[in-house]
Amino acid sequence: MEIEEKIKIYGEKIDKLLKEEIPLNKEDYLSEAIWHHLSTGGKRIRPAICLITCEELGGNPENAVHFAMAIEILHNMFLLHDDIEDGDTIRRDQPTVWVKFGIANAINTGDYLLAIAYRSILSSPSPIEIKMQLLDIFTMTYARTVEGQALDINARAAENFTVEKYMKIVELKTGYYLACGMAGGVALSENSSANINAIWELGKNMGPAFQIKDDLIDLTMGKGRGGVIGSDISEGKASFPYAYTMEMSSPDEKDVLRSIMAKEREDTTEDDIKKTLDLYKKHNALEYSQNYAERLIEGAYKTIDRVDSKGNAVLKKIADFMVQRST
Amino acid sequence: MEIEEKIKIYGEKIDKLLKEEIPLNKEDYLSEAIWHHLSTGGKRIRPAICLITCEELGGNPENAVHFAMAIEILHNMFLLHDDIEDGDTIRRDQPTVWVKFGIANAINTGDYLLAIAYRSILSSPSPIEIKMQLLDIFTMTYARTVEGQALDINARAAENFTVEKYMKIVELKTGYYLACGMAGGVALSENSSANINAIWELGKNMGPAFQIKDDLIDLTMGKGRGGVIGSDISEGKASFPYAYTMEMSSPDEKDVLRSIMAKEREDTTEDDIKKTLDLYKKHNALEYSQNYAERLIEGAYKTIDRVDSKGNAVLKKIADFMVQRST
Repeated sequence: MEIEEKIKIYGEKIDKLLKEEIPLNKEDYLSEAIWHHLSTGGKRIRPAICLITCEELGGNPENAVHFAMAIEILHNMFLLHDDIEDGDTIRRDQPTVWVKFGIANAINTGDYLLAIAYRSILSSPSPIEIKMQLLDIFTMTYARTVEGQALDINARAAENFTVEKYMKIVELKTGYYLACGMAGGVALSENSSANINAIWELGKNMGPAFQIKDDLIDLTMGKGRGGVIGSDISEGKASFPYAYTMEMSSPDEKDVLRSIMAKEREDTTEDDIKKTLDLYKKHNALEYSQNYAERLIEGAYKTIDRVDSKGNAVLKKIADFMVQRST
Repeated sequence: MEIEEKIKIYGEKIDKLLKEEIPLNKEDYLSEAIWHHLSTGGKRIRPAICLITCEELGGNPENAVHFAMAIEILHNMFLLHDDIEDGDTIRRDQPTVWVKFGIANAINTGDYLLAIAYRSILSSPSPIEIKMQLLDIFTMTYARTVEGQALDINARAAENFTVEKYMKIVELKTGYYLACGMAGGVALSENSSANINAIWELGKNMGPAFQIKDDLIDLTMGKGRGGVIGSDISEGKASFPYAYTMEMSSPDEKDVLRSIMAKEREDTTEDDIKKTLDLYKKHNALEYSQNYAERLIEGAYKTIDRVDSKGNAVLKKIADFMVQRST
């Protein structure tokens, strides 16, 4: 079976479980907002990858559904809080939760999602030692992602933004989070020869590779908002090409880039975006970014060989799959 | 040793541990905000009660310090997010975290506190079965408190606010949370004759008793903001006297009460507060509230006898201590 097909089948399984775990009850002032958010889509790719990893390493994917669901819930909790933090008003053509339900309900709903995620792991039927391992994996992922978000929030328009700073943010904010499902899948497979530490290293390659590809999509075909190019520039999000161009720029160019990044979204003009893109072009930032991402993916392949010889073919397919699309 | 003295000693112990667990590192854009918040005070009463409960039931309080710290962190995480949700700008004479560091950092810092709380429980030296029990206690408390907050956020100026609705909110929002330290203390004492379920029932008495006393303080001597009376009214917080008066009021009186509650803080006049207080007085709401709280405390005493015969004297002292002060 192709990986896409498996992800679809397992994704639907998780979707069904989510509906059971979070019944819609408008009187609790929580589940309506949760389902407003969950219904905006998402293909439940992260949990599906957890189930596939578990299965390929010789485990029973049925044992992994609770943890897989917890990852999906964590993912959505982050999106929900990030939308408030970034001031994003639209997600997949729908108003974001804070716009529709207010900031107070949006913060509290995100908090609730985390409680459900922990409850889901705690109530899973796994042996107690595996459960503790899953809780460690989940809590570390949660902590690292929030640490990355802290750096990200405060990095915008920083005086000397560099590729090194970008990588630190993205390793924390995206790396653990992307590897978490695979790490849980390894633990749940109870395959003692598989190497969880290699999974975290894989995340350090995959996370930035995934994010750089996402940055490039924004600059070449736009992120699905009617194909508008450069929304990261107007939103002041420090991308890899921005980090690289900042490093290569003259002091005057740096000032131009920073002043555009510091502008509020509504104040950023088309001319600002053009000026930024011209500087990216001048310094060959797009090719450099593309090559950098490719090298990270090569690194990921090498790391996968260290996880487990049995499951490495499918893990490579997962790696390919993830860096090709942003979800 | 008197309970106040014990709380002081154990509170200082937790304070020391907090400083070790969350070192101040301004470059992480998290710990500065955390310590801005933690330094505004708090006597670490909740964790101290956890340690005292553990000790009085025959356990070693040293084994309870990680869980006790987790409760204190949870408490502060709620305060931090609640301040954003309620739009509170000042806490203990200092600007709240969202005012000083911005909403994005404040949300993210609260999220981080929760990660530290879970990490603290997971890394404690307790046997694995006790740890699982603590994680269940902690996660249930966290979930129930957020559920109560959801009701609270959306209850303001509701058409038919009642004592029943007030009690439901406060049992969820304050009850579990107040009992959590004692429940953890019981689990950590490894005293198999002690009854944790009775602790949760105790919370259902103590939580509302504590909150009603707090509501009354606001109406009689003010909550420490230069002794201003009725800040709950100007902030639109539905108190027990409000709930009771709403039930007893004529339709016209209800309209008056609701319209004042619905006003923004800055639009609420002194005359509005006087009108509300007059209606409370007309319906004897303060005496009724006082008596209601006393009956809850009597209920708490009876429940304590069911927890454990050995530790009940000190649990009663804790109960007395908690309902006498708001922290």
